[in-house]
Order: sequence, then C-alpha cells, then structure tokens
Amino acid sequence: MRILYHLPLSPYSRKVRLVMAEKRLPFELRAEKVWERQPAYLELNPACTVPTLVEDNGLVIADSRVICEYLEEAYPDVQLLSHAMGERVETRRLVAWFDEKFFSEVTRHLLWEKTMKQALKLGPPDANALRAGYANLKQHLIYIGWLAEHRRWLAGANLSLADFAAAAQLSALDYLGDVDWSASAAAKDWYARIKCRPAFRAVLVDKVNGIAPPPHYADLDF
Amino acid sequence: MRILYHLPLSPYSRKVRLVMAEKRLPFELRAEKVWERQPAYLELNPACTVPTLVEDNGLVIADSRVICEYLEEAYPDVQLLSHAMGERVETRRLVAWFDEKFFSEVTRHLLWEKTMKQALKLGPPDANALRAGYANLKQHLIYIGWLAEHRRWLAGANLSLADFAAAAQLSALDYLGDVDWSASAAAKDWYARIKCRPAFRAVLVDKVNGIAPPPHYADLDF
Repeated sequence: MRILYHLPLSPYSRKVRLVMAEKRLPFELRAEKVWERQPAYLELNPACTVPTLVEDNGLVIADSRVICEYLEEAYPDVQLLSHAMGERVETRRLVAWFDEKFFSEVTRHLLWEKTMKQALKLGPPDANALRAGYANLKQHLIYIGWLAEHRRWLAGANLSLADFAAAAQLSALDYLGDVDWSASAAAKDWYARIKCRPAFRAVLVDKVNGIAPPPHYADLDF
Repeated sequence: MRILYHLPLSPYSRKVRLVMAEKRLPFELRAEKVWERQPAYLELNPACTVPTLVEDNGLVIADSRVICEYLEEAYPDVQLLSHAMGERVETRRLVAWFDEKFFSEVTRHLLWEKTMKQALKLGPPDANALRAGYANLKQHLIYIGWLAEHRRWLAGANLSLADFAAAAQLSALDYLGDVDWSASAAAKDWYARIKCRPAFRAVLVDKVNGIAPPPHYADLDF
C-alpha cells in the first residue's frame, strides 16, 4: 500500500491528502515527528519535511509540490492541472501563492504560535505574530473571494491544484478556529463548495492530540 | 521581445536567466525594484516578486519554479527535465531543496545581511545570521560535492534544472565573495563545469551597483 508520511495540521500534508483522495488513490497515513529527525526518515527525505510519499514500487517523492506534479503525471484520469498553457501557468502561480505567500504571511504565524511553540515548550504565543497573521488572513480571504467571484474555481473554470493548495492552508487554520469567514462571503461560499467534496471527508474527521476543532469545522453547512 | 523582470543578485532571477540562456531563448532584462511596489508591476505579478517573465504573446508567468516548468513545456528542444519519472522526481526534489532549504538556511542570511539590509539602511549585518549562513553553506557544499561525486550532474547523468537552481544560489553568494570553495573539491569542480557553459556568460559580467565581485568570480579556472 502507498504510504504518505504526514502531520495532521501540516497544510502541505493536507494538500497531498486532498489531491490523492480527489484522484481516488488509496494510501496509508503515517504520522512523522520530523523534529525528532529519525535516521530512517532522513534516508527517505534528507530535507526531513512532511509530506513524503512512498509508492508501491518503492519510488520516494518528497515536497508537496513535487508530489502533486508527480501525481498529475502518473495518474492523469482525474485532471487537476489543465493541458492549456495559460491555465497551467495560472494554476501553478496560485499554488506557489498559497504554498509560499499565504503560508509565510498567515499560516506560519498562527500555526507556529498556537501549536508547535506550545508543543515544544517555547513559551506563550507572541501577540504581534498572531496580530500579523490575522490581519494578513483577512486580506487573503478578500483575494480568494475576488477570485471566486470572477471564476468558477480559483484558477479558472475547473477545480485544480490551486483550490486544494488554498483549502489545505485554510482547513488547518479552520481547525484552530482561526478563520473569520465573515471577511468574504464569496471566499466562504467557495470553501463550502470544496469542503463538500468526498475528498475532504478524511481531513474533516481528523483529531489532533490536545486540540479540539470548533463546532463548524466539520459542518458542511457552516 | 520576451521580457524578464529581475534583480541582479536574486538567485531565482539568475536561475531563470541561466535556464533561458541554456535553451538559447533571447530575452530583454528589466530590473524591478520590488520594494517600491509599483502599481504596473503589481498588475503583472500581485505577489510582487522577481522574476516575472512576459512572453511576446502577452503571457505573464511569475515565480521561478512556475517559469521553469513553463519553459520546459513550451521549449522542449533543450531538455532540462528528463522524461523518465524517477529522474523528474529527483530533479524537482533538488530544485525545491535549493530554492527553499538552501535559500532559507544560507542565501537569505548572507544576501539579506550584506546587501538589502544595507541598501534599506536597516543597520549593520547581524553577526549571528552571518555565522549561521556560513556554517550552513559549508554543509550544503559538502552535500553538493557528495552528489557530484556520485553522479555526472546533480540530479543524474544529465544537466538539469537542479544544476541551475544550485548554481544560481551559489553564483549570487560567490559575487559577494561568500563561498569558501575549499569546503568541497567535488563541489568546486562541479561549479567550474557549469560556470564554463555559454549560458553562464551574461551572469558573470553582471555588475551590481556599489558591490564589486572578488577576482575569481568571473574566472573560469578559479
């Protein structure tokens, strides 16, 4: 069985889980505490990040963006990256946007301050970091809403890797109760649409040690 | 004429310049001071990063990794990403390694402290950041040397995007005189090989305002 090494609140792990579920590829999840730097895991992925995918044939694929490009090439039946050049460029631009810009401006602040810092006993959350994260999140929700008002899905007419890259970041923050959906009705409507997909089910029943999600987290009519 | 918005010491801009030159694609360079956040540039690339490529047909492509994937698909004659799945995965893994891990552990510290911080008048370089950058650089050179000893090029038998991703980071640091090549003879030999390629010429004659490169920077027999 295909194995995905992950962490439950890692947005990059969530992205790959969502994409594999959308492509109906079965896989087994293994949590990997990357901060322990286990030699066997470093052997698989010297960058020691999650996710890492190990295929049945032994092929090891690290880095969520590399995994998604691989899945698109190896399993093209459910297509999440258009064949049209302009749409490919726009989809990949938005994947980079959410993986890098959204993560560094929003997720990194909120997720780090509220979970990892606590778990590693590095002190209480830093108020400035949280404030920056919330302020940036509002702007990003407005941008997502703008995209969703002008297109059926974020990168164009079709559901794509861009939607899963965005939804993965937001679902991790939503688990922490950190998303004020009132910032954009269009963003909320888009998120409700993607959250209803069967691919989302496994992510919505996740439970993270010591952290309970808010009541609306798994609610499809939130 | 195809236009590439760039900054001379941006490793991501350098990567795209090298890849386009290797593919013998003519282009015009335009320096973009991204910190000025010019409205016309934000229109092209809302993330306001360099590089951004604008094709003759008007297609705008932002983010160096997105640009490289695009160039590989649009101009496949000079191939820098193998068609074999295992090699594609390894090439992309190493591109992510240099773009993310090498950048955040090495380039970010040294380039930021020694150029941008000074240009933006934010005070003298932070000694701890420089120390961390140099220490991490040594480990990365050893890893590059290990790869170069086991393979003809970094990702395998053929020159690939991985070599240009690594060379782009290193060439920016080498311009600052920050690379102690004695850390790995094999890494130095690999860099000498890629530096000799015609694609490297334009990068080696670059001059950055107020910063002179060390004498060995443009020397092919360094």
